[in-house]
Amino acid sequence: MTATHKALEQVDSNINDSLERLFAFLRIPSISTQAAHAQDCRAAADWLVKELHALGFEASSRETPGHPIVVGHRAGPQDAPHVLFYGHYDVQPVDPLNLWQTPPFEPCLMEGPDGAQEIRARGAADDKGQVMTFLEACRALIDANGALPVGVTMVIEGEEESGGTNLLPFLKANAGELKADVALICDTGMLDAKTPAITTMLRGMVGEEVIVTAADRDLHSGMFGNAARNPIQVLCDILSDLRDGATGRVTLSGFYDGVPELPDDVRRLWRDIGPSDEAGLGSVGLRWPAGEVGYTALEQTWCRPSCEINGISGGYEEPGFKTVLPAKASAKVSFRLVGTQEPETIRAAFREHVRLRLPKDCSVEFIAHGGSPASVVPSDMPQLEKALEALSEEWNTQAAVIGCGGSIPVVGEVKEALGLDTLLIGFGLDDDRIHSPNEKYSLTSFHKGTRSWVRVLTALAR
Amino acid sequence: MTATHKALEQVDSNINDSLERLFAFLRIPSISTQAAHAQDCRAAADWLVKELHALGFEASSRETPGHPIVVGHRAGPQDAPHVLFYGHYDVQPVDPLNLWQTPPFEPCLMEGPDGAQEIRARGAADDKGQVMTFLEACRALIDANGALPVGVTMVIEGEEESGGTNLLPFLKANAGELKADVALICDTGMLDAKTPAITTMLRGMVGEEVIVTAADRDLHSGMFGNAARNPIQVLCDILSDLRDGATGRVTLSGFYDGVPELPDDVRRLWRDIGPSDEAGLGSVGLRWPAGEVGYTALEQTWCRPSCEINGISGGYEEPGFKTVLPAKASAKVSFRLVGTQEPETIRAAFREHVRLRLPKDCSVEFIAHGGSPASVVPSDMPQLEKALEALSEEWNTQAAVIGCGGSIPVVGEVKEALGLDTLLIGFGLDDDRIHSPNEKYSLTSFHKGTRSWVRVLTALAR
Repeated sequence: MTATHKALEQVDSNINDSLERLFAFLRIPSISTQAAHAQDCRAAADWLVKELHALGFEASSRETPGHPIVVGHRAGPQDAPHVLFYGHYDVQPVDPLNLWQTPPFEPCLMEGPDGAQEIRARGAADDKGQVMTFLEACRALIDANGALPVGVTMVIEGEEESGGTNLLPFLKANAGELKADVALICDTGMLDAKTPAITTMLRGMVGEEVIVTAADRDLHSGMFGNAARNPIQVLCDILSDLRDGATGRVTLSGFYDGVPELPDDVRRLWRDIGPSDEAGLGSVGLRWPAGEVGYTALEQTWCRPSCEINGISGGYEEPGFKTVLPAKASAKVSFRLVGTQEPETIRAAFREHVRLRLPKDCSVEFIAHGGSPASVVPSDMPQLEKALEALSEEWNTQAAVIGCGGSIPVVGEVKEALGLDTLLIGFGLDDDRIHSPNEKYSLTSFHKGTRSWVRVLTALAR
Repeated sequence: MTATHKALEQVDSNINDSLERLFAFLRIPSISTQAAHAQDCRAAADWLVKELHALGFEASSRETPGHPIVVGHRAGPQDAPHVLFYGHYDVQPVDPLNLWQTPPFEPCLMEGPDGAQEIRARGAADDKGQVMTFLEACRALIDANGALPVGVTMVIEGEEESGGTNLLPFLKANAGELKADVALICDTGMLDAKTPAITTMLRGMVGEEVIVTAADRDLHSGMFGNAARNPIQVLCDILSDLRDGATGRVTLSGFYDGVPELPDDVRRLWRDIGPSDEAGLGSVGLRWPAGEVGYTALEQTWCRPSCEINGISGGYEEPGFKTVLPAKASAKVSFRLVGTQEPETIRAAFREHVRLRLPKDCSVEFIAHGGSPASVVPSDMPQLEKALEALSEEWNTQAAVIGCGGSIPVVGEVKEALGLDTLLIGFGLDDDRIHSPNEKYSLTSFHKGTRSWVRVLTALAR
């Protein structure tokens, strides 16, 4: 039996223990964007350090101005390549809590609609479950063979979900320690439940919060309605103008500068391999692509830039009715970027869009929430073919090369700070409900994801 | 000394006791729109019954499907007229709580910016302070003279702030018991701090809640942004279309049917007596009328119909950022009506406006929150002149006849159920911050308001 097969057997025979460890990790409510959970973020980092020590890694939790970053190292055989694995231990908030079928931080196994077992918890798929596929693969390799086939450095941060700005300076400050040949990130998905994928196109993101203020106090809408400027109305007018109703295009000045058209051959390939609009949108109860006219839903999310309102708030929002004319209203807006769209240029164009439409008697305040350009992995990257082969072997089907509508700013940061290209390999599924109530990670993703890393790490050693 | 002067002296010498009683009333957090405060509403009703008993009224708290209605009677001299006084013991919610300088249900006296004493509490002006001016006037008349100059029935309800629907059926069911010659309501304001007023034009109101749903769950805006319909964007588009940007006019089909133009003489009078745009809007930190082009702020609020967004909610509203594409978004919208605008016609036009603009893949739900037509008090009402004289005497200046942008549906209901016209006499000021944090009632309003009712009740007996 080869060293690889010994490790794969080790994965299979220890799957219940692996799951127990993942559950322990999932029980820590490490919501990075909420100050009340700062200690939980620290606890998640400490938990990881303990696990890495148990695997013979040199590991520690490093302080930052925000949540700590976990770093661990374990050397590989002499002359073997060294990989840098990135993941995050923080999770999204859980609201609306009443829509969860099980408590978000009490992980459990449930049978899904297709009869498959699902790991249910906030963070199950994004990103604790995915991080643990890598960690458990390292464990199996070490347990089976006494060594890893490659050198491994792990960097697990705690501000991925909160637009943190501490990772890039940390990578830069520790570039020497974090030297490697390639970066590995496990925060993406498969093409479908049976087809593994490596993601080579990622959208960038700009997050903005906008707060419009009119009167110096909340008013009675009977006494002042009509005459006093209503900031909710102002905000609706401004946000409504963000998209052209007829074409679905974003109206910001210069928004499409640097947006490449999809090459015809890629477009054809995606129309072959990707889900139809009916299937893709159908999985969430929708049917018709809502954005830019002339693009499929897949194209719209994988390779077209977007603008979304992620939150809006103003006036009386409780049950019942209150005839208030509020003093302020606010919204959170994000832009997804492709090609060479420049985050700070887009941010400035948005602020200009708002200011140009701001009526008399109103003031506006902006809060920046992160910004990162799109990233594209070079198709001639030497490790790409090896990893695709390893994945194809584990899943017994040709692994796909895909795009992703989400943003993983760390890909650009790892390139900028450490000069590394990244292989984005992940085992999430479209219906994992990440960022939503009842987030899940398929037990198959966890099990075969762990087995996949055993194969990929072994392949990268060749 | 006349009976009237004895009663006025009684008001003056007992002002501190009167204030103590008002404070006790204000301490009860009777927020009618919030189910958690149902017992507090009941406590406020019980408190009133006890006070009325102490004044020799036959009084009781009557059950309704919602909050109880307090009814009290005390006969006047034989052949004297009988008045029906209406008020409400319920108050508005107190959010945003952090903007209150003092706890909303711990009433206190504070010095205002002009050096005048202010009674600070939720409900101080709307409507507990105003109700207590009438009750304390009755007390002074009884204490001074052993009798009231007119027969008095008081109806104090608990659902004025929550669009309750129980008052009208109650009035109809008890029309015999509630027989009177004229209705008196103390829920309006003065022209300014020195000039008392009777309000003869009131806007009506239609309240609507609209909930737009797209996907069957909250989505990740990276994974689905652009392709999946965003209900916040849909709502903003629909609400933005409610007003014409150039003219400020409401765009609902048929909205201005039944809206009379203001007669030139009234317009001239209002431009003489009313505050300028700078003064009116300036009191809340604004300057430019925002609504219909061509009307002053006063005209826009007193005699023009309006549409206001009173609340909006959707997606992530907590601190930080979350790239959610929510399943639903909602808004609360109210229309203020004038002339013969018909509430249910306006409601239907609004729902049609929304449905016509609803894109594919979205559904919409509506919740009705009250509807009442505008009301106008006849200028030849026999009691109007007597009341104006009494007010002019107390305040030593000509009392004004004014309009009001707010809605007091009970005026129409009292007419419909009991056949009574209403004198709207109140002592609120524009800067009372009703429905807002730091609501107040001027101590002068409370004191001279009580004295005013002594004079008005005496005048109505003649």
